[in-house]
Amino acid sequence: MNGHMNGHTSGTKLANGALSPYDDQHAVNEIRKFVIDICRQNGGGHGGSAIGMAPLAVALWRHTMRYNPSNPNWFDRDRFVLSNGHAAMLLYAMLHITGYKDMTVDEIKMYADAKAVDKTTGKWKSTICHGHPEREVPGVEVTTGPLGQGIANAVGLAIASKHYAATFNKEDHQLVASRIYCTTGDGCIQEGVALEAMAIAGRLGLSNLTLCYDNNDVTCDGPLNWIVTEDTNAKVRAMGWHVIDVFDGDTSVENIIAALEAAKLEKDRPTFINIRTTIGYGTTTAGTFKSHHGTYSDDDAAKHLAPGVTSTHQLSQNALEYFRSTVEEGKKWEDNWNLKLEIYSIAYPKEAKLFKERMEGKKDFERTLTSLSIPSELQPTRQFNGTVFNELISMVPNIIAGGADLWNSNQMGDQSTRILDSLHPEGRVIRYGIREHAMASISNGLAAYSPGGILPITATFFMFYLYAAPGVRMGALSNLQVIHVATHDSIGEGQNGQTHQPVELDSLYRAMPNLLYIRPADAEEVLGAWLTALGAKETPSIISLARDPAVTAIPKTSRLQVQRGGYVILEKENATVTLISCGSELQFAYPAAQRLDSEGIPTRVVSMPCMKLFERQPQEYQAGSAKIPEASIPVSIVLDSVLSNSPHIISVEAYVASMWARFCTASIAMDSFGYSGLGRENFARFGIDDDGIVSKVKRHIGETNGKKRRHWTLLK
Amino acid sequence: MNGHMNGHTSGTKLANGALSPYDDQHAVNEIRKFVIDICRQNGGGHGGSAIGMAPLAVALWRHTMRYNPSNPNWFDRDRFVLSNGHAAMLLYAMLHITGYKDMTVDEIKMYADAKAVDKTTGKWKSTICHGHPEREVPGVEVTTGPLGQGIANAVGLAIASKHYAATFNKEDHQLVASRIYCTTGDGCIQEGVALEAMAIAGRLGLSNLTLCYDNNDVTCDGPLNWIVTEDTNAKVRAMGWHVIDVFDGDTSVENIIAALEAAKLEKDRPTFINIRTTIGYGTTTAGTFKSHHGTYSDDDAAKHLAPGVTSTHQLSQNALEYFRSTVEEGKKWEDNWNLKLEIYSIAYPKEAKLFKERMEGKKDFERTLTSLSIPSELQPTRQFNGTVFNELISMVPNIIAGGADLWNSNQMGDQSTRILDSLHPEGRVIRYGIREHAMASISNGLAAYSPGGILPITATFFMFYLYAAPGVRMGALSNLQVIHVATHDSIGEGQNGQTHQPVELDSLYRAMPNLLYIRPADAEEVLGAWLTALGAKETPSIISLARDPAVTAIPKTSRLQVQRGGYVILEKENATVTLISCGSELQFAYPAAQRLDSEGIPTRVVSMPCMKLFERQPQEYQAGSAKIPEASIPVSIVLDSVLSNSPHIISVEAYVASMWARFCTASIAMDSFGYSGLGRENFARFGIDDDGIVSKVKRHIGETNGKKRRHWTLLK
Repeated sequence: MNGHMNGHTSGTKLANGALSPYDDQHAVNEIRKFVIDICRQNGGGHGGSAIGMAPLAVALWRHTMRYNPSNPNWFDRDRFVLSNGHAAMLLYAMLHITGYKDMTVDEIKMYADAKAVDKTTGKWKSTICHGHPEREVPGVEVTTGPLGQGIANAVGLAIASKHYAATFNKEDHQLVASRIYCTTGDGCIQEGVALEAMAIAGRLGLSNLTLCYDNNDVTCDGPLNWIVTEDTNAKVRAMGWHVIDVFDGDTSVENIIAALEAAKLEKDRPTFINIRTTIGYGTTTAGTFKSHHGTYSDDDAAKHLAPGVTSTHQLSQNALEYFRSTVEEGKKWEDNWNLKLEIYSIAYPKEAKLFKERMEGKKDFERTLTSLSIPSELQPTRQFNGTVFNELISMVPNIIAGGADLWNSNQMGDQSTRILDSLHPEGRVIRYGIREHAMASISNGLAAYSPGGILPITATFFMFYLYAAPGVRMGALSNLQVIHVATHDSIGEGQNGQTHQPVELDSLYRAMPNLLYIRPADAEEVLGAWLTALGAKETPSIISLARDPAVTAIPKTSRLQVQRGGYVILEKENATVTLISCGSELQFAYPAAQRLDSEGIPTRVVSMPCMKLFERQPQEYQAGSAKIPEASIPVSIVLDSVLSNSPHIISVEAYVASMWARFCTASIAMDSFGYSGLGRENFARFGIDDDGIVSKVKRHIGETNGKKRRHWTLLK
Repeated sequence: MNGHMNGHTSGTKLANGALSPYDDQHAVNEIRKFVIDICRQNGGGHGGSAIGMAPLAVALWRHTMRYNPSNPNWFDRDRFVLSNGHAAMLLYAMLHITGYKDMTVDEIKMYADAKAVDKTTGKWKSTICHGHPEREVPGVEVTTGPLGQGIANAVGLAIASKHYAATFNKEDHQLVASRIYCTTGDGCIQEGVALEAMAIAGRLGLSNLTLCYDNNDVTCDGPLNWIVTEDTNAKVRAMGWHVIDVFDGDTSVENIIAALEAAKLEKDRPTFINIRTTIGYGTTTAGTFKSHHGTYSDDDAAKHLAPGVTSTHQLSQNALEYFRSTVEEGKKWEDNWNLKLEIYSIAYPKEAKLFKERMEGKKDFERTLTSLSIPSELQPTRQFNGTVFNELISMVPNIIAGGADLWNSNQMGDQSTRILDSLHPEGRVIRYGIREHAMASISNGLAAYSPGGILPITATFFMFYLYAAPGVRMGALSNLQVIHVATHDSIGEGQNGQTHQPVELDSLYRAMPNLLYIRPADAEEVLGAWLTALGAKETPSIISLARDPAVTAIPKTSRLQVQRGGYVILEKENATVTLISCGSELQFAYPAAQRLDSEGIPTRVVSMPCMKLFERQPQEYQAGSAKIPEASIPVSIVLDSVLSNSPHIISVEAYVASMWARFCTASIAMDSFGYSGLGRENFARFGIDDDGIVSKVKRHIGETNGKKRRHWTLLK
């Protein structure tokens, strides 16, 4: 066994030394009954798979996993991921029954928040028992729900654990030994993101990962064979996994435990345990899709009642005693581990210092970024970004980066950092393969392992962050710091053509809560983008970069000002026009402004690399009435109006303009997909180079002369 | 063999009856040389896999596929899909060499458009030889490029062909017999979307689909074993495919032909031909990643020169004769088929009439939609949508619909339509399984088979259209009519919580060119949404629906007005406030307006179910100065201002507000992810119900009293 104090057969030694007749099957029954209670709170709620997985839950929480309910964040705990997140109530039940103090019966009664207004105060209550588990809740490792994400997260957690172990463990000091347990239903393993992640897990030989498949042959709509007839075991085996069958998963906790133990013995491959279960086992709708999101009858509840358990949400004292030995066990585990760390610290003081810094999430990047100098020749932002990235990865041990087979095109690689693979889990560059979605979702797992300990960085073309979008979103929603390096943005992407030119993808990411989409215009702003992204400790960022060289040097850009989202780079008294731009287009807007000015149209220029940061600035800074001083003044001092009172405020960007309207009176933008031409020529083709800007602005001013337009306009 | 007039061995009978010494290997050499010529035009361009696949190309175009270069749209042609779309030059080379008249050498010289400005006119030229193939080009079936999409498209095409055959073929009249050929590199089959689609192909037993794997062991970044070590054949076999190996794909056209022929004999499964090739075969960078997007030397070109071929872009007369027999062959195939259709029309006049209508893309939906009556009780829009959908699918034979295992929750199923599966390809409801991305991309293939012949409809929760987004985007970019039914939109989704509440996803779809995101408020507007979506013959639509019942009956909504995007439903003289809203939130905005009015703040209400359609209206209609009459007047007559001159124009929607700013002075909106509560309560929790609207509007008017705000504001 694995250090749990009690065996897994009938008869249990209680804390007081007496033998209890209470055993695993009693525990399974009570958990099932408890789940039915939760379902009956408000007429439904995904109880079927929770009931079916109860034996697995007992096997995991009572007999297999190492964790400390008193400190859900104990560093070396085993991690549990409920990829089939709709079975959340099972996780809540197990956290409660094993003694996580925040998970009270009162909270569980709020599951999915049926009665959200407090009757006495009239105020909105919030529960930690969300419809799907969220990682802010103690004991929940990652936020799951959208199917497939959890499996990819678990792969990330497993990579993280292997990486820590390979980096810090010594022959005689096994400091990091955490294993990752993940459950999946029939849903997750149909999803592309999970299939991508499982392929990666197989290739990396993640032997510390056990994926438990709740194989109940039923999905939301009906029997599984309506949609899946393939040989799942063979498919998973072909991906390099160790596959174990459990045929009596409804009743045999023992066989599940045996499989979990066998998984621990496997040294080269991740393990997939195919557990045959019955959805809603023992209820009137058992084995049917009606059990997936159904209600349960009094009879259903009664069938699973443990002796002495009668009322709703009641667990027997036996049950609590049976599981809450884990509270003491968990404390001992952590105490022992702390002792291990002390001994390690004496033997390896240097490594121990680094390890503790990682545990605390410390990282020092400011020095690198504030000291880096700008190249003298013009470079594409993706190229200088590569320089910055390579400096950072050499200075910041927390970084684990990786790309989706465009590492060379992304210009990320200087080849000096070791690749992370099955032989070298201490490596820090992951070759994700052509699996963008899994790359993003695995990165969430890396970031979630121990906050700040690992800073995941991903890279691919910006267009392919549409493939990755559900993963990026889950990172934003889960407050995970991941930095996504997106090269080849806008129509400057060039010859690959419209299929590769993300003219509207910025709209998704600029609208997404808790995500920073940062689009620097030049090398100086690339440094600002990294300063910003690295400083955002609970927020993912996308740094959006251009394929092609800048053709103009842009004066007055500032790495410090980037952190304010938008700032003036060319000021002008009594300006008629303010041009706002970012990315490659700023190199066109700047000379366009100078030309307009020379033709008698006073024009100022704002660089706005990040709308979301700009909107966080004080109103006076955004659009006050005061004049704005030169841009080079430190961030802490300047507090004036970026969006001046010029009659025309016009955005310039080779994307669909939707996101700009709130700042502008008009926009120069795309309103179609792009074109397969050279990058530089594409800007000219669509009238978004300096010639195009000058002529569109002049025409617009002519047309609106005297008339004040009320509504925003797209300039053609 | 398969009806091609010439065998595939050395020595070829020319049109004049003479034997030519020119054979397959000559052809392979010339194609390779031609590809190198194209690469050398502007220093690169994905020639490596095109060179490696040349023998496969000869096997397909010269010996296997049935097509008519003179009529690229001949109905019963075999379809070819280049899923590894970056090898576009191979497709262009083959279309040229087989005699597609648009594909001239001059066009090919414009590949990726190196010199896009016409020197004499100074105007922008456009080429049909895009960096990745686009379906507007004769001979290109679907637009590919983002990896994995093409495989899913091919699955859609194969379903379409099977469906037509099962629907119209008779024992003695095999009217539809087209097969689908798809090529993939190492990239596509790593992508989740392809793995999902291949699982579906296996389950549906698509024996008319042959997927040819250009297995060259190299990807963009380096050797394949950096990222893939799994047993691909075993994995594909586990998914229900027939797997054939070709070990000498660089040199043996004959063995490839044999495999393609074997695939035709397989009656129950799709076939995967694993062809070992060398990227950039015969060049100095052969077998390395440098060949993936490399340039080639004079030596490289010389090696592949066919006898008598010397100059750039020159093909020998032998080559043209060798391939252009297909022009005559193709005509004969089509002529024979037309004859078949004539005979069929005599034998089965009724079926023939239906078949011809499908060929022409005819469908009659207007009668159904204009005559459908509105239910007397309040229903969630998803529920009434189900009624409409079931009427439509029973009336319009073109519809093939399907869901991603939420068919019941989507309320789409009335169980009366036959399921499309391997035994019943004539069915019209596809169970896609939990594979949203493949669902969207397969639907593009269904729509592309024969324009208008099949109208694909998909369904899942709106949130999961983020998984499907790359597929939806490709449909928009390819001008394919697909209707996506997205239920459970906004925070009204309810108890599943923030992981399932798409607060920002509308921004992506509202910004996406050539896509209509339509968010009806009630049953009347649901009919309008369908009228609009069904009428948009080259544009995909998303119909966005609410989970929960409306609580208010909304007067003056109009199915006809929906097609204008936005219209007034409550008019008011000298209004202080215009509220613009859509979806579930209109039911709150309407009574809020009445309450504001009764408290002395004259308020009008605009329903705006589709921003993109609204922006297509004449400027006078959008924001002119004239007053607007009652909303119930027919679309063709009303031409007045929706966005009046009321001092405050305020949008109300439970999404992030970014998309509204261009129409508004302020917005009531979300600026965070949602919450796991009851749907109705969520609107109250976030202040977007009638109480919230009234109080936010009053506070805003108080704050701005006298001051005119210049910039858009988010009301808190």
